[in-house]
Amino acid sequence: MSNRGERRGIHGVVQVGQGPRLSWASSLEASINITSSSLISHLTASYTDSSDDETSPRDKQQKNSKGNGDFCIKNIKQADFGRREIEIAEQEMPALMALRKRAQGEKPLAGAKVVGCTHITAQTAVLMETLSALGAQCRWAACNIYSTQNEVAAALAEGGFSVFAWKGESEDDFWWCIDRCVNVEGWQPNMILDDGGDLTHWIYKKYPNMFKKIKGIVEESVTGVHRLYQLSKAGKLCVPAMNVNDSVTKQKFDNLYCCRESILDGLKRTTDVMFGGKQVVVCGYGEVGKGCCAALKAMGSIVYVTEIDPICALQACMDGFRLVKLNEVIRQVDIVITCTGNKNVVVREYLDRMKNGCIVCNMGHSNTEIDVASLRTPELTWERVRSQVDHVIWPDGKRIVLLAEGRLLNLSCSTVPTFVLSITATTQALALIELYNAPEGRYKQDVYLLPKKMDEYVASLHLPTFDAHLTELSDEQAKYLGLNKNGPFKPNYYR
Amino acid sequence: MSNRGERRGIHGVVQVGQGPRLSWASSLEASINITSSSLISHLTASYTDSSDDETSPRDKQQKNSKGNGDFCIKNIKQADFGRREIEIAEQEMPALMALRKRAQGEKPLAGAKVVGCTHITAQTAVLMETLSALGAQCRWAACNIYSTQNEVAAALAEGGFSVFAWKGESEDDFWWCIDRCVNVEGWQPNMILDDGGDLTHWIYKKYPNMFKKIKGIVEESVTGVHRLYQLSKAGKLCVPAMNVNDSVTKQKFDNLYCCRESILDGLKRTTDVMFGGKQVVVCGYGEVGKGCCAALKAMGSIVYVTEIDPICALQACMDGFRLVKLNEVIRQVDIVITCTGNKNVVVREYLDRMKNGCIVCNMGHSNTEIDVASLRTPELTWERVRSQVDHVIWPDGKRIVLLAEGRLLNLSCSTVPTFVLSITATTQALALIELYNAPEGRYKQDVYLLPKKMDEYVASLHLPTFDAHLTELSDEQAKYLGLNKNGPFKPNYYR
Amino acid sequence: MSNRGERRGIHGVVQVGQGPRLSWASSLEASINITSSSLISHLTASYTDSSDDETSPRDKQQKNSKGNGDFCIKNIKQADFGRREIEIAEQEMPALMALRKRAQGEKPLAGAKVVGCTHITAQTAVLMETLSALGAQCRWAACNIYSTQNEVAAALAEGGFSVFAWKGESEDDFWWCIDRCVNVEGWQPNMILDDGGDLTHWIYKKYPNMFKKIKGIVEESVTGVHRLYQLSKAGKLCVPAMNVNDSVTKQKFDNLYCCRESILDGLKRTTDVMFGGKQVVVCGYGEVGKGCCAALKAMGSIVYVTEIDPICALQACMDGFRLVKLNEVIRQVDIVITCTGNKNVVVREYLDRMKNGCIVCNMGHSNTEIDVASLRTPELTWERVRSQVDHVIWPDGKRIVLLAEGRLLNLSCSTVPTFVLSITATTQALALIELYNAPEGRYKQDVYLLPKKMDEYVASLHLPTFDAHLTELSDEQAKYLGLNKNGPFKPNYYR
Amino acid sequence: MSNRGERRGIHGVVQVGQGPRLSWASSLEASINITSSSLISHLTASYTDSSDDETSPRDKQQKNSKGNGDFCIKNIKQADFGRREIEIAEQEMPALMALRKRAQGEKPLAGAKVVGCTHITAQTAVLMETLSALGAQCRWAACNIYSTQNEVAAALAEGGFSVFAWKGESEDDFWWCIDRCVNVEGWQPNMILDDGGDLTHWIYKKYPNMFKKIKGIVEESVTGVHRLYQLSKAGKLCVPAMNVNDSVTKQKFDNLYCCRESILDGLKRTTDVMFGGKQVVVCGYGEVGKGCCAALKAMGSIVYVTEIDPICALQACMDGFRLVKLNEVIRQVDIVITCTGNKNVVVREYLDRMKNGCIVCNMGHSNTEIDVASLRTPELTWERVRSQVDHVIWPDGKRIVLLAEGRLLNLSCSTVPTFVLSITATTQALALIELYNAPEGRYKQDVYLLPKKMDEYVASLHLPTFDAHLTELSDEQAKYLGLNKNGPFKPNYYR
Repeated sequence: MSNRGERRGIHGVVQVGQGPRLSWASSLEASINITSSSLISHLTASYTDSSDDETSPRDKQQKNSKGNGDFCIKNIKQADFGRREIEIAEQEMPALMALRKRAQGEKPLAGAKVVGCTHITAQTAVLMETLSALGAQCRWAACNIYSTQNEVAAALAEGGFSVFAWKGESEDDFWWCIDRCVNVEGWQPNMILDDGGDLTHWIYKKYPNMFKKIKGIVEESVTGVHRLYQLSKAGKLCVPAMNVNDSVTKQKFDNLYCCRESILDGLKRTTDVMFGGKQVVVCGYGEVGKGCCAALKAMGSIVYVTEIDPICALQACMDGFRLVKLNEVIRQVDIVITCTGNKNVVVREYLDRMKNGCIVCNMGHSNTEIDVASLRTPELTWERVRSQVDHVIWPDGKRIVLLAEGRLLNLSCSTVPTFVLSITATTQALALIELYNAPEGRYKQDVYLLPKKMDEYVASLHLPTFDAHLTELSDEQAKYLGLNKNGPFKPNYYR
Repeated sequence: MSNRGERRGIHGVVQVGQGPRLSWASSLEASINITSSSLISHLTASYTDSSDDETSPRDKQQKNSKGNGDFCIKNIKQADFGRREIEIAEQEMPALMALRKRAQGEKPLAGAKVVGCTHITAQTAVLMETLSALGAQCRWAACNIYSTQNEVAAALAEGGFSVFAWKGESEDDFWWCIDRCVNVEGWQPNMILDDGGDLTHWIYKKYPNMFKKIKGIVEESVTGVHRLYQLSKAGKLCVPAMNVNDSVTKQKFDNLYCCRESILDGLKRTTDVMFGGKQVVVCGYGEVGKGCCAALKAMGSIVYVTEIDPICALQACMDGFRLVKLNEVIRQVDIVITCTGNKNVVVREYLDRMKNGCIVCNMGHSNTEIDVASLRTPELTWERVRSQVDHVIWPDGKRIVLLAEGRLLNLSCSTVPTFVLSITATTQALALIELYNAPEGRYKQDVYLLPKKMDEYVASLHLPTFDAHLTELSDEQAKYLGLNKNGPFKPNYYR
Repeated sequence: MSNRGERRGIHGVVQVGQGPRLSWASSLEASINITSSSLISHLTASYTDSSDDETSPRDKQQKNSKGNGDFCIKNIKQADFGRREIEIAEQEMPALMALRKRAQGEKPLAGAKVVGCTHITAQTAVLMETLSALGAQCRWAACNIYSTQNEVAAALAEGGFSVFAWKGESEDDFWWCIDRCVNVEGWQPNMILDDGGDLTHWIYKKYPNMFKKIKGIVEESVTGVHRLYQLSKAGKLCVPAMNVNDSVTKQKFDNLYCCRESILDGLKRTTDVMFGGKQVVVCGYGEVGKGCCAALKAMGSIVYVTEIDPICALQACMDGFRLVKLNEVIRQVDIVITCTGNKNVVVREYLDRMKNGCIVCNMGHSNTEIDVASLRTPELTWERVRSQVDHVIWPDGKRIVLLAEGRLLNLSCSTVPTFVLSITATTQALALIELYNAPEGRYKQDVYLLPKKMDEYVASLHLPTFDAHLTELSDEQAKYLGLNKNGPFKPNYYR
Repeated sequence: MSNRGERRGIHGVVQVGQGPRLSWASSLEASINITSSSLISHLTASYTDSSDDETSPRDKQQKNSKGNGDFCIKNIKQADFGRREIEIAEQEMPALMALRKRAQGEKPLAGAKVVGCTHITAQTAVLMETLSALGAQCRWAACNIYSTQNEVAAALAEGGFSVFAWKGESEDDFWWCIDRCVNVEGWQPNMILDDGGDLTHWIYKKYPNMFKKIKGIVEESVTGVHRLYQLSKAGKLCVPAMNVNDSVTKQKFDNLYCCRESILDGLKRTTDVMFGGKQVVVCGYGEVGKGCCAALKAMGSIVYVTEIDPICALQACMDGFRLVKLNEVIRQVDIVITCTGNKNVVVREYLDRMKNGCIVCNMGHSNTEIDVASLRTPELTWERVRSQVDHVIWPDGKRIVLLAEGRLLNLSCSTVPTFVLSITATTQALALIELYNAPEGRYKQDVYLLPKKMDEYVASLHLPTFDAHLTELSDEQAKYLGLNKNGPFKPNYYR
């Protein structure tokens, strides 16, 4: 996951430098409150926090079983429960576990002092404990005020990690936690792992001198990456930064493969719609659109595609989809799915012309693709029929089924497979290792993509999950191809 | 098509600078005789040249109906037949026809003097007549001694083109024809359209001063492009060159979409094999491999994949293919297909272990992937059972079915759809227009890829074929995305 | 839906007369308590019955707004809410609505007195109100003590239907309600619509003379149909009966098309597993197995099939699945799915050999396919991790993920699309019309399948949903084919 | 293959008794000359008969190497070449080879005297030699005057078979050969294997008494089966007959699986059309239509379906195809494919409205589906552009590409995979065994379908080809299902 609010980076279209222009300052203030409660509810779906304890963690004095109290969490007593969650997650994150094993001899992060600010979940815990196994010391805060799994935080604290996070922080708590990670005597971070840019921003604002000892920033989210590119452009980026959001492996999994499954899942969980025979229009044929179209076609839907880019349009044709303008099919389709990365793709005019019962949802960008605001008019009635499902009712009785109020369907109404989280976490770990160990001069004060070879390494760590056996080049073949036997095997632009 | 001999560029793996190192001089001498007769037989499949006329065209005096004799072809009397061929091809190359229409007002190639050296087929004729309609003057030779369609050459000559080509040229004829295109009084070329690099080489060798007036080279083949990069590296490239082989649209069509169909076609025409239930191993999961795997899976084959690149390997997994090493499945598969771009992928050791009746073919790179030479040993019997089909028989009676002697199946035993040729020809035309009209300084003495926007334009010209309707960005949307409304819509690396 | 407990008829294998031998009497007693709470929870998922009213409906005196009190339900005040549910369901059951329209002139059920015993849901209400519009009078009880939607029952009572049903009946209530439908002064049923056979049984037992005026029975469930065949064999069936469970349209939809979607849905909702790259074994390649395999293959899983029938086995081969014995792949697969209609397909021996994390579920027959009882041994630990999801943990820590305790995944963990319910309800309505209007002698005291032509009619009524346009035979073509222009178009055995 | 002329049985629609009414007598006379030269050219495609020997075989005296001369073929000297062909065919017909092995102990056809009349090809030779290995004596004639492979006939004669057949028989030769098989001293047939009904007819007409000793007829073709049903209806069938044309396995393979591949093959070989993005309408969604649609969808075509039967129509919807009337899409489609089994499906009116370049072909029934005759009008020009490919040109220059003059594309322009022939031949062999060994009274003087169990046995014999492993029922499971452990596993109507 890549952002505190919505995950904006899931579509293929918005490129760095082309995205919406966010003002750093204003977005900082705003972003605290833009929280995707649905995302969080998934992250924490299976855990009930029965604690009626209303005391703020900041007011508690807690110590773990070894007497260590350098953390601030909800309830240290939940550690056992959290440990079980972590152990289950470990089973599904074999790449990180493999990294731990390979690092038993060498400690590539020995001496690293990592300050992190991410969602605090079982998967993150596996990442943190991997970093620790690789030699790093960690201090951690949450990048979202709602997404912390309290029992996982407890297990981490019990394990000796300095964690400052709980579910339901106030805005003040949020910054206080971040500050507690950074502003500590006798410990100065030399690596930053950020998801959304708030940690980075805080250090820029409060402790700019700290950057002198920082070797690099690893940033996960579209928003955070965007901020870094802005800093870089403005000449204000004072350490190398690694953009892990745009690595090939992550992109393919977050977009094509993950959405191929989550479009079906999201639609079923919310509407129980039968796909067979349904007419669907998918707006946008980037990676997300390709995934959605492939899945729906396979389930027996008749799929139309809209596109602005002639190359993607031609791909849609060759893949067997009629390329249309939205107005050509809007009256006849049963389902409308946006995945363009654009804004106002489905506007009121189209909503007015949809047929009764049409399902409208967004797989693309934030909540801008469907002009939901245009439906907030007096003559339309909204009826909440299920969680995340609204019927918007026209005066003549026509009902449109709007999902997740136009927010991302796959985050709101589906789940993110652990396998995808595993790829992200592994990429983060490798980016930290790369930046920490890079020889002087390899990276300047700029934003970098993960080297192709590292990207390939992330992929290779996930192959055992599928019992997949890679072929190795012979010396003769490597020479013939002009390649190193260990890769990289493709140019950087390969997708 | 991209080369005089085999089309080497069809796979996704060989990157510029990584391909086999060819000596310019030696390859020049050698390449004349390395001719893919199978390719040619397809190109000329439907045309019977009943002429028993054994006189060399060089010894004939022919004039077209307007008294023009500035050409050298087999027989001007075949012009009517050739004209019909061209007219049929026109119907399938709507993009070039559209270019002609759009250029009725302006003549973007007015003043251009194009010397060309390509296969001379009905499709090329449509290209040449399009260039002419755009304002260019053309002189043309064949890039292959066997591939000329004589009746098409006749129709071109009758139409006023200075064509120097016939089917069955000798090596001496070959260079003589090229020379006649270039070395002519009162006409000095300012643009080169080459396929294989021989024309370019000839001018470098014989008329280096000619480059002073030449605005650019457009090169189609992998081999030719490779030579240009070598020249560039050596600092000897004295005009800008455009590599059209690696444009996105062309690559996707030549590789993924074209091979998805030609693997089935090539196997059926040669072996009549039923695909359903067959076990197949596909070596390499680049674009070609992806196309082959998708097609065979859809036809009910059980497909295994081998790969060296972990990212492609993970894609194979997610697409539902078991990733194996060749030796794990070699005993059980019914069909082995190579598409790695590598050499010696299927070696004698594997051939020895295949089961009786196993079909072996190559969709990848030249003829290096299968070690065919290793089968030329005394204990093995070769039996030619059909054109392009050999049974290689082991002492115990086991038969391996080797297709096209390990050369490219899709070129040897299938056909290249006109639609693919249309994309290539349109790309060539646009590359000529771009280089010819580029303002001073846009292109240096280097090798360039077609600008993204032009690539998108090629795609857009082919959309009407599919009755496909592109959506246009609104001003507001374009601003939001930070894009120009007319593109380019994606970064250059987008695939 | 076809049974009070589990829906047993969902697989293609068990044929009438081949199924498990149930003793009528014993099963009658037993079946009351075998209730699929999961099915019910889905049927009633979106409705919360906040009423704290603990008074038994039998002790209440309620009247609808017109003063009619001939019903017994939970709370007549919920009628408005129930009406909305019915209206929403109407939108998704266009075939019944079409039947209503076509019957505006004629009333094919005029004079029919239908006593029914089915699940009482919004969809059933649409059926009942359709029967009423066609001219029938109805009295209705629930076939399941948990599945009644109270607010729908209220709306029906408000609309004048004599409904006797509420959620949470006792066994005594259950038979009392049925009796109230039948044993009423001045009203004697002439048609029976049954789902499970309990109503039929009650009349046989208590009011055998009633059959003198009954024109026929329409039975929906596998169990009920089985009982009818037993009666018929024993010479005790005294009226014609229509087996709607085995109609072509219903079978294809219940099995192939419905399972193609519900296998994905059921797995996702319970485990969030990513399908791409997963190895799956599907036991049984009947219609259910075909649906499961097609869906998983499309999502990028690698699917193996086991079969006992060589014809189905050969179909699996031709469709691209490796046909294996379970023991060949049991160690390597990530997911095991049974859909054989058989018992003890997955036994402890196989469960012992599965790998850690393997998911085991049943799409086939009742709860016999997986030998769940064999997992209730002391050395294994069961952990309920979610609703319907158990981890069974081996002493070495290996976990098997068992879904729905081996009961039907698609009923337990997924939903039945309204479209499928619509086909069933339409088939029931047409079967009633056919039996009621059949000329003397067309049907004897036997069990019949719906005439092919009626089956085709059900299908045709659902085509408008897909904006599908049927072609009509010309007279000349009908004559040529030897067919009636209005069908039937295929022999009875056509699938 | 099933008929002397076209194979009419390849579609799923025409049922026995519903097909075109053929007069026995008239069709007999007519059928000799209605020969599908295209089918024959495939059967004999790879064999060149360089013999310039114009002597009629009937005038030759030939003996095989053992001095036996009881045959009449073209040239006994070709026996070696024919033997190689047979050996190659043996490799692809493992089921018959397995039958031979299993029969090494018992000889189920010991005493059988089989007279046969079929195409005489390498595949038939494998069948005949299998029958011989099972104990039968055989005499054989050709069912088609063109389809005999002379060298195979030679090999059979050399091997001791009494074969009377050569390529290019006259009509008189045809009946003479049949007569030579039957009318021989000291040998009276007790089994008939027929393909088209001519042999059966001859015996009825000339030697009716012969039927006293004949145990049964096995008939392969639609036409022949139709004649048998007519005889049966008329009470004139005097021995049991087995209709092998309609066995499940054969139907599925001939129609669904075979057409899935041959539609692509037939279109490619004739037109080299690229499938991706093409709009195609498939008329008829029976097994053939299902196969065509699945293949084209997989290749990226956009497929529309027309149907008359609502059940098939609904299947098309659920499989993701828009169901239309032909006139709704006729202007926009690139390819029109008929597979209805009907006549005049594509009439002149539609042909007039097709767009330029539209390809029209027939996969269904004989040559009646496309009204080709309506194109034989003066204003239209026909141009033969390739074998089996005509351009029909309208006055305005529009060209329709008509394949195989409306005859069956898959027989005319593709090949029949040996695997399909293997299934047919195995079915024939088992039908002979069944009829020959059936206890008195099992079969009356009627037409029978192959028992389900035999059908399953045919399938099981082909599983080893795919290395497919069947699961066996345990005693407990068989009992539970009420099945015999060895089958049959499904009711007769199972498809």
